Parts: sequence; C-alpha cells; structure tokens
Amino acid sequence: MSKKLSTESYKGVRDFYPKDQALLNYIIATWRGVAEKFGYVEYGASILEPSELYKAKGVENEEIVNEQTYTFTDRGEREVTLRPEMTPTVARMVAGKRRELGYPLRWYSVPNCFRYERPQRGRLREFWQFNADLFGSRSPMADAELIAMSYEMMKAFGASDSDFVIKLGSRSYLDSIANQYTLSQEQVKALTALLDKRAKMSAEEFDKAWAMFNIPASVLGADAVPADVAETLRLLGSMGVANAQFDPSVVRGFAYYTGVVFEVFDTNPDNNRALFGGGRYDNLTELFDNEPLPGIGFGMGDETIRLFMEVRGLIPPYIPPVQAYVALASAEVLPEATQLVQELRRAGVAVAQDFGERKLGDQLKAASKQQIPYVIIVGPDELMAGAFTVRNLATGTEDHVGREQLVPYFAALKL
Amino acid sequence: MSKKLSTESYKGVRDFYPKDQALLNYIIATWRGVAEKFGYVEYGASILEPSELYKAKGVENEEIVNEQTYTFTDRGEREVTLRPEMTPTVARMVAGKRRELGYPLRWYSVPNCFRYERPQRGRLREFWQFNADLFGSRSPMADAELIAMSYEMMKAFGASDSDFVIKLGSRSYLDSIANQYTLSQEQVKALTALLDKRAKMSAEEFDKAWAMFNIPASVLGADAVPADVAETLRLLGSMGVANAQFDPSVVRGFAYYTGVVFEVFDTNPDNNRALFGGGRYDNLTELFDNEPLPGIGFGMGDETIRLFMEVRGLIPPYIPPVQAYVALASAEVLPEATQLVQELRRAGVAVAQDFGERKLGDQLKAASKQQIPYVIIVGPDELMAGAFTVRNLATGTEDHVGREQLVPYFAALKL
Repeated sequence: MSKKLSTESYKGVRDFYPKDQALLNYIIATWRGVAEKFGYVEYGASILEPSELYKAKGVENEEIVNEQTYTFTDRGEREVTLRPEMTPTVARMVAGKRRELGYPLRWYSVPNCFRYERPQRGRLREFWQFNADLFGSRSPMADAELIAMSYEMMKAFGASDSDFVIKLGSRSYLDSIANQYTLSQEQVKALTALLDKRAKMSAEEFDKAWAMFNIPASVLGADAVPADVAETLRLLGSMGVANAQFDPSVVRGFAYYTGVVFEVFDTNPDNNRALFGGGRYDNLTELFDNEPLPGIGFGMGDETIRLFMEVRGLIPPYIPPVQAYVALASAEVLPEATQLVQELRRAGVAVAQDFGERKLGDQLKAASKQQIPYVIIVGPDELMAGAFTVRNLATGTEDHVGREQLVPYFAALKL
Repeated sequence: MSKKLSTESYKGVRDFYPKDQALLNYIIATWRGVAEKFGYVEYGASILEPSELYKAKGVENEEIVNEQTYTFTDRGEREVTLRPEMTPTVARMVAGKRRELGYPLRWYSVPNCFRYERPQRGRLREFWQFNADLFGSRSPMADAELIAMSYEMMKAFGASDSDFVIKLGSRSYLDSIANQYTLSQEQVKALTALLDKRAKMSAEEFDKAWAMFNIPASVLGADAVPADVAETLRLLGSMGVANAQFDPSVVRGFAYYTGVVFEVFDTNPDNNRALFGGGRYDNLTELFDNEPLPGIGFGMGDETIRLFMEVRGLIPPYIPPVQAYVALASAEVLPEATQLVQELRRAGVAVAQDFGERKLGDQLKAASKQQIPYVIIVGPDELMAGAFTVRNLATGTEDHVGREQLVPYFAALKL
C-alpha cells in the first residue's frame, strides 16, 4: 500500500463530528426561529460567484479582496471566487428579480463563507454566517427592526442584557465630518479603517494615528449623536431594546455602507470584541442597474456566537437523535431483532441496531461511545417472554418493558 | 457609475429564491427524518479538502479527478479541491478518530459537492447530496439496511413501489469474472467503465464493445445471481422491500467499491435513468492507516430527486414561513402597529410589517407577491375599536378579529 494520507482537514477549516454538527444545527435552528418570527424568508445561493462581483468599486474593503479571497480560474477560463460574505450575492439576486419581488422584502440565509486568513481564535477560513436583509425601505424602523432582531437572537442564545451591548455608528455622520474638515477620498478611507480597528488598538496607538487627521477629538464624543442614530435609538427603546448606545468609532469595514451601522459587543472584559454587526447600504444594487433600492442587513458568524456561549456555559448538552440501540444477546435472534426494529421505526422511534457480530458487552460499549441514551436487549428469552430489558446507559438503571409498551415508553421519554 | 454587473449566477450553479430554498429545505428535512429514524447521526465537513485525498489510487474514477474537479492552489501554495463527493471525507474523519468511535457507526450528512461538468438536465456544477454511511460491519444486514433506507426515502418523497426499481450488482462478482477470464487490471477497469455506461448506450453499441472482451454474454444473465447479492435480496424481502433485483450491469463508477453495489432507477420510460446509488467499500480507510474498517454507503442528489418529484407532481406547494403581514391604513399608526407586531411575535406568530411608506393597496400587493397568506389591516379606527380586518390574500375573504383573539386565530390556522 502506498504512503498513508493525513486524516487532518484542510488548514483553518473544521470537521464537524456529530457533537459539533449538533451544536451547529442548534445555532442554525436558533437563527432560523428568530428570523422567521420576524417575517423573514430563507433564500440561498452557490458559494461560487464570478470574481467581478467583489472587484466592483464600493463593494468590499480592499484587504478582503486583495488578500483574503479564494479566487481561481476554472477549467473554462472563468475567474471564480468562493464568497467571502453574502451581501453582494443577495444584492445580485434581488436586482435580478427586482420587479417580481414585493417590498419591503425580508430575506435571510445561512451561507458558509470563505476567507484566506491566518486561522486564530474566532477566525476560520470557512465559517457559517446568518444573514438577514431588508430591501426597499428608507424608514428608520427598518434599521431598528434589524437591530431588534440581533437583540432577540442574543436572547435566544441565552444571553442576558448585561452580557452584550449594541453600539451604533453612522456612515452619514462620517461623511459630514469629511465635508467639514475637507478630507480627500483617500483620507476618508484611512479614517474609516482607523476607526474600524480602534477596538483592537491601545489608546496610545489610536491617539497617535488620529492626530494625523487634524480633527478635534470632540467629534468622537458620545454626546454628538447624529440624527439617524438618535432616531434609531429612540425606536429601539420603544421596542424594549435598552442596551444600545451611540459609538462614533463604529463604522464597519465594508465600503458599501451608507447610513446607520452597528456592532454587537461582548461585555465580558476577557472577550471585549465585536461579535457581529451590519448596517444600511442604500446604493449596492446600483452595481447591477440604475434604480435605487435601499438595503439594510447584518451577518452573524457561527464561531463567534459559539465562543460567546462557551464562555458563559450556554452550550446545550449533546443528545444524539437516536433514542435507542437494539443489542443482541445472541447472534441467532438477528431476524427477530430486525423485525422489532422495523416495528419501532414505523411507530416513530429513532432506533439503531446491532447485527450480532460482537459480544453483548462490546455492543453496549459501542452504544455508550455514541452517547445513545437507551439500549434494548433482545435475546431468545426476551422474545419468548415478549418483554425486554431497557437500560439507561447514563445511569445504568433498567426497566422491563413489554413489547407493546416499547413505543409509548419511548414516546413518553421524548417529552 | 461604471459598467453594470450581470445578475446571473456563476455558470451551472443555482440561485435559490425563497420558493426554491423552501423545496430544498423540504428535501433535506425528508432526508434527515428518514436517516434519523434509522439511527444515523449527522456530521459535516468543509467543502475544501487537500487535493491528495482524491488523487490516491483507488479513490475516484479518473474522469472525475482529471476532468471534473475544482482544484486550485491557495495563497499558501497548498493544492485544494472543492469536494466532488463526500465518501473520501467521511473515510478521513472516521480514520482520524477511529478509536473514539463506536461500531457499527451510522453517520449521515447533507454536503454540497462540486463537479466541473457541462451543465445539463439533472447535472449541475454544485449540488446537494445526502450521504449515509455505516462503518464496522461485514454483515449483509448492513448492505440491506442502507438499501432499505434508500427505499424508505423514495417512499417519504411520495413514490410508490412501481415508480422505481432498486438494482443490485456486485464488485466481487466482477472480480470473479476477471479471474475466470484472466483479465488484466486495465481490462477490468475498461469492463467496469463499459458496464457503468451500459444504461446510456444502445444495445448495438454495448454488444459491439462487449465483444472485445471475449467473455460469453451469459455471465450478464439475470439468473447468475452472486451469493452476496442473493443474501442481500433475501434480507430486503424480509424487510418488505419488494422492488429490488439483480442487475449484473450495475457496477458504479467509483474505484473504491468492493462488494454489493446498487442503483435506484426511475421506471418512467421518459426518465429511465439511475437516480442515485451506493455500495460497499471495505478498504477505503486503508488510505489513512493499516487497520481494515469495512464501510458501506450511498449518496442521493437534490436535483435528481427534485426532477423525479416534478415529473410525478410530488412537489409540495410553497407556503412561506410568514403567517401574516401587518399593513397600515395610514402612516401615523406605525408605533401602534409595531406594538401589535411585537405582541404577536412574542406569542409565537411569525409576522412581517409595513412601515407605512406606501398606500395600503400597494402594501397588499407586496404581501401578495411574497405569497404571505394573511394581511392584518391596522388603522386609527381599528385601534380604537380593538378589532382588525384579517384578509386571506388567496381567497379574498375577510374576518374581523378582536385584538385578544388574533393569537388564537393564527394558532388555529397553523394546524
């Protein structure tokens, strides 16, 4: 046999063993549940996109396009990119069927996205990212609705109000500063990048970089709340979202934002970072045509929320979808055991079975390794008596259950 | 503004607008439901895999590796492939935690896979593919279980027994023919490829190609049932799967199969093709280490099953997850309408709302375009009276529902 292959995954991506997959499924189900309660419907798209989608002026921040995309040429000489985020895709899809869709349009998706970055805590080369977007409204209620949905998602993951804070900034405020101090386009870009990195810098580093712009520090004061942010905060208050505040440093990295932007921060001092965010982008569909269509949205990654939950003990225990394992006291009862398994499945019990290739003790160990909660032991005596031993593998306790009672027994455990 | 971008997706992949996504979700939910009833648990992995996984001898058929993979070099000079199928990945993951896992191990997954092919009916460059695999058993019951699961899936999609037939072949039978007629390895490969393509050839084409091997046609007779196939067919019969039969032409394209292989065929004469299939591969984990671990599995693509359902009218009607749309008779009731929306959401009603930026008639049209089933009309009179008009957008019928009755009204509709 030739040289053995490694069992490692590709660098910076994850294998989802059943316990990991169950947690990812829980995160996705939580996202879906809140989004649908808010009236959003799911859409999807391929991870493959024509590269031009990300090269258009005003779509991405340049760091992502130049250094962090997976871009390659296919066998037909097309330049293809694995999507680094979902917003350009959703803008493309909405622009493509603009007249058939009704507005305000509420869409959500749970795509996997790809960035070639140095893998580190909370940053992976492939991640899952919930995306919600609302198209066709300039009302501040649209901004408030998306932020309120973020808030409800944090609550749905078990967070309390003190665990996180929602910080709102404004791209239009940034524009007004640029006007007042006559900054060049290059300077605006540098200022945006500096503010976006502020949370990751020391105060000294930031102050030094800030000084180069010759703008008084007072424009960054928390009292200079711009009008769009003030109105959104008022609406959020009326909707019961109390942990939101203005932060002039919140600008978001992507070039396409035009109005209110926001980021949800972990308040844990050991993890004082932006968990996720979003904002208003009123010009993005103009990449595809000339009819303006305002949009607002946010994205929330699976790994950041998983770390948030992990630190706070909010991760639910793993319970496999299999309720019971049918073990064989001796190999010759395989046909009768299979019969029983079929009866149980037809009645809605999720059940795996052994084929009698190993001793009973080894069968129980295998079920235990898989964290299957119950084992039903089938042997000639049990079949004769028409009653089976049901063992709880976690506690070791046993019940003797008649054949006719097995279905109600497991139905009751489900509750 | 610069040149406008196309709103088309990348060639050969699909955009999933809400109706398409809902159907994909239905297909995935059906797969999951049956798999978990059979005691399988979900795992997942990245679409990015080291290319060496597919280049190893005995993993793939050469057509796929040489002509149909998406393979590129990443920014760190690693050769990466977008997975064309899931079996090498699951073998890698099982080999990687071999000792921690319990056997027989039952795993399933719903990955997206990628093949650079000429797009055509039923063949896309990205597709979703259910995969189920059972590791650690040489029992013919394992083969029968996977085939029975395929059968139950077809039934769960609404198929009747006469809509499809399950054809079983055997790689070990192929090996015995090769021995008997002393075929070279190259000849065995050519023979396998020929049999795999038989269903797509005319009888004349096939007979001509077959004649070159100098093997009597009788070895392809349906009466020469090999022992492993006969035993699997017997077990399937005892499990109530009657539409399975031996077909010596069924060999499957992948090089890694070693025992029973099977394909599910559409019996519709207009679509007489293999829908999906699988088989036993007892040596695949030996790519990673020297401990043998038998495996058996199958994969089922979303587009082939969608076409099967479409031809037979089995596709369920689209119902969006949003139950109601709150429309505003006049813009000034927005705060009160938002209040009502929040009450409904908290009580479990999935509801979207208008922000009063357009006339009521336009609001109703937008809800109708989105196929939202009901509209709740909110105006000053309704708020004063504490009762609202609820309009069924499909039928045009209306009910007048008191504020306190709205939640039970929608809860009852859900049933």
